[in-house]
Amino acid sequence: MLVGVVGGGQLARMMFQESIPLGIDLRFLVERAGDPVALVSPHHSLGSANSPDDLRRFAEEVDVLTFDHEVVDLDTLARLEADGHVLRPKAATFATVAHKRRMRSALRAAGLPMPAFRATTDPLEAAEAVAEGGPQVLKIAHGGYDGRGTFFVDDPSEAERLVGAFGGAEVLLEPRLDLLAELAVLVVRGPSGETVVYDPVTTIQVDGQCRRIDAPARHADDLLAAARATAQQAADAVDAVGVLAVEMFLTHDGLLVNELAARPHNSGHHTLDAAVTSQFANHLRAVGDLPLGDPSLTSPSAVTGNVIGRDEVADPRDRLAAGLAADPAAHVHLYGKSPRRDRKLGHVTVCDDDQDRAVDRVRRVVAALGGQEVPR
Amino acid sequence: MLVGVVGGGQLARMMFQESIPLGIDLRFLVERAGDPVALVSPHHSLGSANSPDDLRRFAEEVDVLTFDHEVVDLDTLARLEADGHVLRPKAATFATVAHKRRMRSALRAAGLPMPAFRATTDPLEAAEAVAEGGPQVLKIAHGGYDGRGTFFVDDPSEAERLVGAFGGAEVLLEPRLDLLAELAVLVVRGPSGETVVYDPVTTIQVDGQCRRIDAPARHADDLLAAARATAQQAADAVDAVGVLAVEMFLTHDGLLVNELAARPHNSGHHTLDAAVTSQFANHLRAVGDLPLGDPSLTSPSAVTGNVIGRDEVADPRDRLAAGLAADPAAHVHLYGKSPRRDRKLGHVTVCDDDQDRAVDRVRRVVAALGGQEVPR
Repeated sequence: MLVGVVGGGQLARMMFQESIPLGIDLRFLVERAGDPVALVSPHHSLGSANSPDDLRRFAEEVDVLTFDHEVVDLDTLARLEADGHVLRPKAATFATVAHKRRMRSALRAAGLPMPAFRATTDPLEAAEAVAEGGPQVLKIAHGGYDGRGTFFVDDPSEAERLVGAFGGAEVLLEPRLDLLAELAVLVVRGPSGETVVYDPVTTIQVDGQCRRIDAPARHADDLLAAARATAQQAADAVDAVGVLAVEMFLTHDGLLVNELAARPHNSGHHTLDAAVTSQFANHLRAVGDLPLGDPSLTSPSAVTGNVIGRDEVADPRDRLAAGLAADPAAHVHLYGKSPRRDRKLGHVTVCDDDQDRAVDRVRRVVAALGGQEVPR
Repeated sequence: MLVGVVGGGQLARMMFQESIPLGIDLRFLVERAGDPVALVSPHHSLGSANSPDDLRRFAEEVDVLTFDHEVVDLDTLARLEADGHVLRPKAATFATVAHKRRMRSALRAAGLPMPAFRATTDPLEAAEAVAEGGPQVLKIAHGGYDGRGTFFVDDPSEAERLVGAFGGAEVLLEPRLDLLAELAVLVVRGPSGETVVYDPVTTIQVDGQCRRIDAPARHADDLLAAARATAQQAADAVDAVGVLAVEMFLTHDGLLVNELAARPHNSGHHTLDAAVTSQFANHLRAVGDLPLGDPSLTSPSAVTGNVIGRDEVADPRDRLAAGLAADPAAHVHLYGKSPRRDRKLGHVTVCDDDQDRAVDRVRRVVAALGGQEVPR
């Protein structure tokens, strides 16, 4: 079976790496010849995930389509599926998850806890939300990622100006919440609905971008059980196939689902080195309708730090020796990307019985590689 | 830095897989377009490891040469090194290790324990060795692998006939030993002589071909310490760079070094899933003059079973779903090779606190994949 992956970023690259032992044959649709997966896989073709022609041509070359990002022409996906192409996740799942308002509606219908929100395309309505509700978080409904497309607005005129600038694109407005922590739970769901669930993790963001993942999350057992159950319900609610990443806020009112992603996810990178079966292998197993693998952690704790570019000069590829020397037991992953401010260039995972010590060790290795400081 | 790997088999394929997270750029010289690494790497060129022209052309494309097998034109390697090309392992190491008589001489000079042996190219001398010493093991000095090139001879005329048939190729004759066990120790040595040593493993052979690896080997601490020390001395004695696999016999007289291999080795496949740093990653780190990684096991025990072809019909690639279903925590590795009797098609590793249970689990998965029975 040929599996086609739309997108050529680091998630595609790690899927490729994990496809090799399984002998699963992957093809990639990449935007640029220098994309992370194009550097290592012989089986990529250039094309745009937003071009109906490119998507259709790619779909015709493979047996099943999957994705490494959401910025894909959703109408074409629906048409491809209607024409008999196999999409995993399905076009409807993808369309729901990739659009925050539709995603929230689906979760509300499933009875899952979420932040209060208002959706609008109208600058005046956005201004009104701020006037009535006070400072808000404003998010574009489709196309944002890594904190891009998310804005903190304090006054009505700012909201009006932003939504006006989006020219009719839908936004969500949410009151700002007092977060105790952010959690993520990865569910992998096969085409027949069987699932495995990874241990909940804590994610630490800076400016909306994930910088650190602590696995497992350290919370009371009942809270963790609730997080797992919520993630499983979310996967069923959107009829996921493959990895569904469920990002949650922990507030004084309990857990609220914030975001979904229907693909392997940054919050599961530790599973490459600290779980029996990685999220990437399990995603491919689900997409290929193969039995799912054991998601158990293999270490009492693991911490992953993202290697985020400082500027266009500090290149982790030039500092690999220093990074490896900083900790002989650290797992260094570089994505082959040129450095740029705030760009995800790689990640480092350390397994350690002591989670705090793992944080310190990850911080040292990421610093040696020239990445931005991993938050303590 | 561009690292050129001579050979395109499963060892090259697993090196490639492990090069991806490190961002180390590999090129491969492969005999056939269908070789395991050629199916997954975009950077391979066709050529023979026994063609001086092909080797030289390949050496000129890369910064450093390494190997996935020993059947390489040794004279050309020496000339390439003399011309300034960087070989890791060095040409002299490779020439020593790839030739059993030279290897034994080097180990003898280092004072390491070995089986008694006689080397000859003369059919009559071979016959004499059997006449005097009784049943012998006869091995061709260069070019044998996986039990091929090894013969059990009971009478002088058989020895004479075999050596005559080799037409002047050198052979070693050894008395048959009463083996209590076979052990292997992997040492990884950097260009400056720094080393890491993996835990000794027990290997179980059928007809000279490795079928099962138990990690760690279960023996008294002093024996295991002696095995590690012997392996380390062997690596120093041959001035190894990269992985040196040291295969040993455990006899009533203690440990005897049997074979060396200056490359990643079947006895270390468990390190992909059961060690902090795999033998493949550490080989690349040594070859790239990068700091070596922690070789510690991540599980109290791990067992690897080779998936050995039964015939040309039973194809593990067609039985992947059954193999994965047999044990959700097993690590299945397929090499992309067409099935054939006695061909190594893949391996399966299981980590388990209980080594005996790991053996049972591996046996079940290999059976489900259609491989020959893994010995109990």
